[in-house]
Amino acid sequence: MAQVTSADPVDREQLHELAQQLRVDSVRAAAAANSGHPTSSMSAADLMAVLLARYLRYDFSAPENRANDHLVFSKGHASPLLYSMYKLAGAIDDEELLTFREFGSRLQGHPTPEIPWVDVATGSLGQGLPISVGIALAGKRLESADFRVWVLCGDSELAEGSMWEAFEHAGVAGLDNTIAIVDVNRLGQRGPTMHEWDTSSLAARAAACGWDVQEIDGHDIEAIDAAYAQALAAGVPAAIFARTKKGSGVAAVEDQPNQHGKPLADPDAAVEELGGIRSLRVEVQSPPQAQSYEIAAAAVERPHYEVGEKVATRAAYGDALAWLGSVDEKVVALDGEVGNSTYAERFAAKHPDRFFEMYIAEQQMVAAGVGLQTRGWKPFASSFGAFLSRAYDFVRMAAISNADLKLCGSHVGVSIGPDGPSQMALEDIASLRAVFDSVVLYPSDANQAVQLLDAMREHYGISYMRTTREATLVLYEADESFEIGGSRTLRSGESDEITLIGAGITLRECLTAADELAGKGIAARVIDLYSVKPVDADAILTAAGETKALVTVEDHWPEGGIGETVAGVLAEAAASTPLVRLAVTGRPGSGPPEALLSAAGIDAASIVSAAQKLA
Amino acid sequence: MAQVTSADPVDREQLHELAQQLRVDSVRAAAAANSGHPTSSMSAADLMAVLLARYLRYDFSAPENRANDHLVFSKGHASPLLYSMYKLAGAIDDEELLTFREFGSRLQGHPTPEIPWVDVATGSLGQGLPISVGIALAGKRLESADFRVWVLCGDSELAEGSMWEAFEHAGVAGLDNTIAIVDVNRLGQRGPTMHEWDTSSLAARAAACGWDVQEIDGHDIEAIDAAYAQALAAGVPAAIFARTKKGSGVAAVEDQPNQHGKPLADPDAAVEELGGIRSLRVEVQSPPQAQSYEIAAAAVERPHYEVGEKVATRAAYGDALAWLGSVDEKVVALDGEVGNSTYAERFAAKHPDRFFEMYIAEQQMVAAGVGLQTRGWKPFASSFGAFLSRAYDFVRMAAISNADLKLCGSHVGVSIGPDGPSQMALEDIASLRAVFDSVVLYPSDANQAVQLLDAMREHYGISYMRTTREATLVLYEADESFEIGGSRTLRSGESDEITLIGAGITLRECLTAADELAGKGIAARVIDLYSVKPVDADAILTAAGETKALVTVEDHWPEGGIGETVAGVLAEAAASTPLVRLAVTGRPGSGPPEALLSAAGIDAASIVSAAQKLA
Repeated sequence: MAQVTSADPVDREQLHELAQQLRVDSVRAAAAANSGHPTSSMSAADLMAVLLARYLRYDFSAPENRANDHLVFSKGHASPLLYSMYKLAGAIDDEELLTFREFGSRLQGHPTPEIPWVDVATGSLGQGLPISVGIALAGKRLESADFRVWVLCGDSELAEGSMWEAFEHAGVAGLDNTIAIVDVNRLGQRGPTMHEWDTSSLAARAAACGWDVQEIDGHDIEAIDAAYAQALAAGVPAAIFARTKKGSGVAAVEDQPNQHGKPLADPDAAVEELGGIRSLRVEVQSPPQAQSYEIAAAAVERPHYEVGEKVATRAAYGDALAWLGSVDEKVVALDGEVGNSTYAERFAAKHPDRFFEMYIAEQQMVAAGVGLQTRGWKPFASSFGAFLSRAYDFVRMAAISNADLKLCGSHVGVSIGPDGPSQMALEDIASLRAVFDSVVLYPSDANQAVQLLDAMREHYGISYMRTTREATLVLYEADESFEIGGSRTLRSGESDEITLIGAGITLRECLTAADELAGKGIAARVIDLYSVKPVDADAILTAAGETKALVTVEDHWPEGGIGETVAGVLAEAAASTPLVRLAVTGRPGSGPPEALLSAAGIDAASIVSAAQKLA
Repeated sequence: MAQVTSADPVDREQLHELAQQLRVDSVRAAAAANSGHPTSSMSAADLMAVLLARYLRYDFSAPENRANDHLVFSKGHASPLLYSMYKLAGAIDDEELLTFREFGSRLQGHPTPEIPWVDVATGSLGQGLPISVGIALAGKRLESADFRVWVLCGDSELAEGSMWEAFEHAGVAGLDNTIAIVDVNRLGQRGPTMHEWDTSSLAARAAACGWDVQEIDGHDIEAIDAAYAQALAAGVPAAIFARTKKGSGVAAVEDQPNQHGKPLADPDAAVEELGGIRSLRVEVQSPPQAQSYEIAAAAVERPHYEVGEKVATRAAYGDALAWLGSVDEKVVALDGEVGNSTYAERFAAKHPDRFFEMYIAEQQMVAAGVGLQTRGWKPFASSFGAFLSRAYDFVRMAAISNADLKLCGSHVGVSIGPDGPSQMALEDIASLRAVFDSVVLYPSDANQAVQLLDAMREHYGISYMRTTREATLVLYEADESFEIGGSRTLRSGESDEITLIGAGITLRECLTAADELAGKGIAARVIDLYSVKPVDADAILTAAGETKALVTVEDHWPEGGIGETVAGVLAEAAASTPLVRLAVTGRPGSGPPEALLSAAGIDAASIVSAAQKLA
């Protein structure tokens, strides 16, 4: 078995052989699967052969080694190439390579972290580079680490604005550990890209973002080698725009239309044209010794508030986050240029080194969080709840990446008042519940928000906290504990006729309504459903058994929120207790919070009216 | 009352007076509301005064005039400035101006089309320019119209990648009717922007996208006037980066930190400093006569398929869209560079003039659709369902805009098979149901898909069709009609013990399961719930009354989909019929569709097993 060590001088012929093996194996993997993207792999084979043999520093036997470089396939559909690189590096064998896309194989259609050498799932284009910015930020700003982040990008995905958020952020942050290798193969899924092989517009934009920029022939081994050397010495993030041919090396598909995302028609002939099957093996450089870095945790008292005080849960978020930053040295925070509204600024003031201002670029914010957590950091990312919808695809993919990502959305619902509907999150519970294995929390007071944020810190996975703009009464003592999946029954008695279920601002309305109903002789149970996912089904079913009817109240659209969550619990248990769901059903405008809650039919008066009909 | 007509030569003093009035009125409106963004308005007052007095062609008495220019406030929070312009143009009076942000006033915190001179809602930053690209495309590519699209952008929002999608698209499409006026006031909500007054990076990037670019002093009346003149003559889209001072004109707030989004502390002093209240009036130029254009509809036969054929609903989407393009001359289509997968390519082949290739830029795609519909076009935008999640904030805002927007997401669910989870839409029903007044359709066969797409064409509002990758059996005759809000009961009898509810790929599984159950002596009703929102509650409640239990089956996460929709119907009616909800609960991988449906527990065998336990 031929071995190439990266200490060798450039040997064009030897490196070409490695690239041919990558092409052959990409063709074979796709042929075995009868699907996949061999032509998108072949275009980048030379680029990846040189990288693997001469530049990447990675111990495939120890993917947990913190000194390893990172290699992110932003063009995740080139997975046959990535998996062929694993074979070339000796990390997997040929037999496993040919399980590509089989049910149960870790070599899925697009890479996921089920593979130990993959940091994050890609396959939704335009995400790998922004996520890499997060990885690079960890290296530069938090760890003073020497690793480099190599990112293979497609040219089609440069149409995604998120890629340009990444170029800008990396430039401003001076991330000289980042090398974007753009495989400009001119052809997208259905035809030519906007710029085809004219890389001038792309290069000029990257340069304007402060990147070192090179435009090269992506099949010229020496040019590739020289480009990597220059990139590493650039002192700024480096982008290499490499003009390539899709399907390169096989005449039947090379630079041909309609060859995207399908196996080659005649894979055997292609393998022969490429010089046959090889079993070369590259000895990939090991990384240098990892640098150590230290951030100390400190015992700091948990923020707490007096019952009866008025405190917005968004303010409690800020206080709690600053506190968590002290007690847990892994906690980092990101915000989308609204830190004085989400109160992430309180973390920033206390822990400036671990705060990342992401400006108004929510996709880049979430992506950076995903990148940071690949290195063990615990990212909390905040913006207005409405604007997190901008990053929904990134949250979706983060769940596929099995990422540990904590989100906070402030200014939810009509109760924000005069700013109007563009600023109101009314779909956040629905959209974030519909994320694999997510947790959705909606604290109803400040002390609870603190406890729940700590629970989010401890919970591995995607979690979301919904905070309220308005200052609301502190209801709970500071030492009361709250758990993910819990609820709190605030008013309860044997003569309860009806149950009111709310969270956040609507819990306040439920409590007021319960008081009014008591005055009318109707005893109402009140449940604080602060954990919307997972939900405390027991508390709901107990109430359904013990009272005549349930009323859910939410500052959210009727779909996918608290009401449907409760409906699901009831229906699954075949409970016949009537349920009335109060939610926002009309298009809201501007106005005082009270007027908007009333207009939406989710204020205390509306609850009283609904309850009276049921009791 | 002083009048300024735009035929006047530049009169610096007169235009300055107009700008001062805009500042004064912005301060007054925010003071009356005790909230709002006066300082973000004051920075752009000179820019807007010159525009209104000398360049904008707009008949405020006839906003429906198709020859009017468009003015889009991409920085929607500068609404006090926009509303002050309306007063200056005589469109509203001072009394109405001071209703800013009041409950019931059309002058909301951020502009919405409740105001007749506003095309689209803004306030989620980074959307106005991409939407304007759609408006401009209508003018250039469809209507050969002379109107211009003026877009006031903020500098903070240039951090959003969507803005750069717009720069690129406008450049490539040569939209010389588009003028972006960037108010570079250096200060965002919580502090300085990334580039502050250094406009070089922004300008270089816009230039690289093919725009004419100017960097000017945004308070220099002559410079502004010259810049607009150059922009109109540029022959390409034009961007004017205008360096301004936030809060300009009032020393207490001018270029000061912590002055974002709040009324001035001393509005009376500010008004005095600005020279007092004015009642100037500008005679805005009328537009030239509108050009007429013609696209003829033609009677073309509706596509139809034979019962028993195997046709993917995504293919039916393509056929139906091509047909609708023939019979309705207002139908236009956009696709995110996957037209050979969504089959939008069939429309493109038939109606190339009305097809817009938006490349892999889903935000720009949806935004362009929103822009196109402002001029009466009926846009159908398609991509993989998973990738529409990229544009979720744009869909959310489109609903606030009361837009007529038709979306199609293909390749939904685990049934796409080997491509793996990054390509599987499993949250699209939940997220798109949670859009104000939306319609969510999920056809189960090709003939139904055709009928439902026609229903979407006729329906004004946000509607979404979910299509399936796999070819499935044609179940319905071509002349059977289907409606939004309907369902179809496919198997039904008096001895039905159980009801199976599915749609799309899972309806196929339900039918197979019903056959198997029949063999085991269990009669099962089968409901095709093709309209998920609005839902046919009657059919569900009838089944709940006539059978012992319901089973919902969906290729989607359990949250916010078909199961919760049905649960909501049952709970609201206090029905005690047991409901079992089969949905995708684990993180899927790659594999053949059948294996993935089985692993997710949503195939026929799983349905049979669930039904047997209930019957």
